[in-house]
Amino acid sequence: MTDHRTETEAVPGTPGTILVDAIGTLVTNDPALGEGQLGEISDAALVIEGGRVAWAGPRAQAPAADARVDAAGRCVLPGFVDSHSHIVFAGDRSREFAARMSGQPYSAGGIRTTVAATRAATEAELLDGARRFVREARAQGTTTLEVKSGYGLTVEDERRSLEIAARVTDEVTFLGAHVVAPEYADDPGGYVDLVTGPMLDACAPHARWVDVFCERGAFDEEDSRRVLAAGIERGLLPRVHGNQLGEGPGVRLAVELEAASVDHCTYLTGEDVDALAQAAKRPEPTVATLLPGVDFSTRQPYPNARALVDAGAIVALASDCNPGSCFTSSLAFCIAVGVRDMGLTPDEAVWAATRGGALALRRTDVGHLAPGARADLTLLDAPNHLYLAYRPGVPQVAAVWKDGEMVAGRP
Amino acid sequence: MTDHRTETEAVPGTPGTILVDAIGTLVTNDPALGEGQLGEISDAALVIEGGRVAWAGPRAQAPAADARVDAAGRCVLPGFVDSHSHIVFAGDRSREFAARMSGQPYSAGGIRTTVAATRAATEAELLDGARRFVREARAQGTTTLEVKSGYGLTVEDERRSLEIAARVTDEVTFLGAHVVAPEYADDPGGYVDLVTGPMLDACAPHARWVDVFCERGAFDEEDSRRVLAAGIERGLLPRVHGNQLGEGPGVRLAVELEAASVDHCTYLTGEDVDALAQAAKRPEPTVATLLPGVDFSTRQPYPNARALVDAGAIVALASDCNPGSCFTSSLAFCIAVGVRDMGLTPDEAVWAATRGGALALRRTDVGHLAPGARADLTLLDAPNHLYLAYRPGVPQVAAVWKDGEMVAGRP
Ligand SMILES: [Zn+2]
Ligand SMILES: [Zn+2]
Repeated sequence: MTDHRTETEAVPGTPGTILVDAIGTLVTNDPALGEGQLGEISDAALVIEGGRVAWAGPRAQAPAADARVDAAGRCVLPGFVDSHSHIVFAGDRSREFAARMSGQPYSAGGIRTTVAATRAATEAELLDGARRFVREARAQGTTTLEVKSGYGLTVEDERRSLEIAARVTDEVTFLGAHVVAPEYADDPGGYVDLVTGPMLDACAPHARWVDVFCERGAFDEEDSRRVLAAGIERGLLPRVHGNQLGEGPGVRLAVELEAASVDHCTYLTGEDVDALAQAAKRPEPTVATLLPGVDFSTRQPYPNARALVDAGAIVALASDCNPGSCFTSSLAFCIAVGVRDMGLTPDEAVWAATRGGALALRRTDVGHLAPGARADLTLLDAPNHLYLAYRPGVPQVAAVWKDGEMVAGRP
Repeated sequence: MTDHRTETEAVPGTPGTILVDAIGTLVTNDPALGEGQLGEISDAALVIEGGRVAWAGPRAQAPAADARVDAAGRCVLPGFVDSHSHIVFAGDRSREFAARMSGQPYSAGGIRTTVAATRAATEAELLDGARRFVREARAQGTTTLEVKSGYGLTVEDERRSLEIAARVTDEVTFLGAHVVAPEYADDPGGYVDLVTGPMLDACAPHARWVDVFCERGAFDEEDSRRVLAAGIERGLLPRVHGNQLGEGPGVRLAVELEAASVDHCTYLTGEDVDALAQAAKRPEPTVATLLPGVDFSTRQPYPNARALVDAGAIVALASDCNPGSCFTSSLAFCIAVGVRDMGLTPDEAVWAATRGGALALRRTDVGHLAPGARADLTLLDAPNHLYLAYRPGVPQVAAVWKDGEMVAGRP
């Protein structure tokens, strides 16, 4: 919205340090550094050194630095941590989306359209697509992005998807158990044998996480437990897709297996909420990751984030960027919907898309801006972070730094 | 999303003509030119000459031109026509927004905060702000933007607001009857006398439209009729804010006075829907302009656009960009919400934000791309217009032309 250009000016100070100066509102997500849950500091500054945050505090106390960026009264916040995406795919499903929005219900079977197109695509096409989505996400303020497989569903196609994912991110998730592969339609047990055997053998070296779509029409509780246990056995950390289309065992299973996150949580029982509140007290909690874009784009009801937060659960917001149920990559949009329709306050929603996402990925180096954190940060064309929910749909990202390097914006 | 850069290459052809070539999907909004309500043409081209559309059709039949823009398979559609905004203002109400979203209800009284800040601002500050919003809107594909007064509420402050509006747009609306000015809190009748007398005398020369906020807490039916009649007497065309906070006389009054549009329409009776359906059959119809961002940002229920369209009413979508009830300037966001929550199909929503907006401003030169129309058009980073609803919150505008000149995007 403003006319400011973001330029790095050379000034005297510690060599290699960058002072981000004249920050109107700095969101640190560290309550020890500033006000409230977000650790907000007004009239602030931040120093970057060696790709990390070296200092954050009131502008008047800022140390000298080697170069200076003028935030000109605008807001700086941690880069978004988007803990859930499916961006290794090919094909176009815009007509399916339009048909659904003109009256047809969402069916998980639509995933098979993307599976066919993804198998048919070349590695270069898939990599080019994934890179474009990473760039698109970065330009919107996302500096950490989890990426899943799940549109290959053969040993070779899943392995290929994970290799591509690993070229664009460090947070790679094996989701061979997305749906039963079409070749196994009459033998779903045989597909689980494949996933937990040869497919995992081929895929585990390329992934950090193992995930399963634990839902009616996909994998039941027993099969989901088998998939996650097999992944854990090979050194992967578990996460779960659950409770999207109806109440079910997803949350229970995630908490039982100490998964980092259970994602969707659209339909929760009182016991599910209690379990998530209990799991939030663990040193390594299970996070409830809500995906506002999915409920938006499938006309599902919205989960009650207010009830989760009030019960003590940890809530994250993520995009679930994928060509079927939700094709947004905008965490700002997810924040706006999280506030409007899930009962989060604007502060809670911003926290959920940054620190919440980091917890859902068991990361302590991102999602906040205390000294020592990665210098992953976003400069908004707005005086404070409330504008993310206050101005829905409006592009407000002026510049983005990842590991201290400007990776998007107008220099 | 894509990597294409939009460059104009010199090629032989009619001097001064520009060929927009290799358009994946061209939305003309002229059913005589292509498929369906949107007059869609696949694999299309369009020729611009003298700021107007000279030709639009299948690529294979395109005439030669002087220069060429490669759309590279992407979508071209008419620039958005945003028929409702309040962008001449000063002050920041982000904290009020956050408080409301944390539990407090919306009250029209908040307008007075903006009135005080607007009166206190210099002309240069107000003009600078308005220009920034126009640039911001253009970068998001809006090529026609209506702008209202209504934060001055004195003869001089309203006149000043309209002069500023007239410097950034041709579609200027006098809204002295936004709320009763604070000085007249005990004498609302006196304020209507002011608005319909000296204020209109000073303001009418700077405006095309007269508007009134016909709502409980603002102006009742009788006062609203007086305001509109006084404006009409001075040569202004009427439009109405109505049926936002509850059922009321707004729609009835708008249809009675043959207003170009009645805006909000959140609460409609069956009689209101019937009246709008009847008014759609007139040569100069009364349009039902829905403002999805307002219902979104105030947690109101959404109007039933489906019922309006099915009854035969003409529906437009507009932003209502203002610092109180809705601070979005994104018509793409309005389209996404119009589809998700108001029951429009993606095609209907795109039409409502282009041709619908043009009808709400009684404009035949914008909102479509038939030969003779203004060359106001948007190139999307997407293969078709469905992506506007399919990818909510994602910036997808690659380039924007107004009167044949590129006014936003990456040349
Ligand atoms: Zn998912
Ligand atoms: Zn308005």
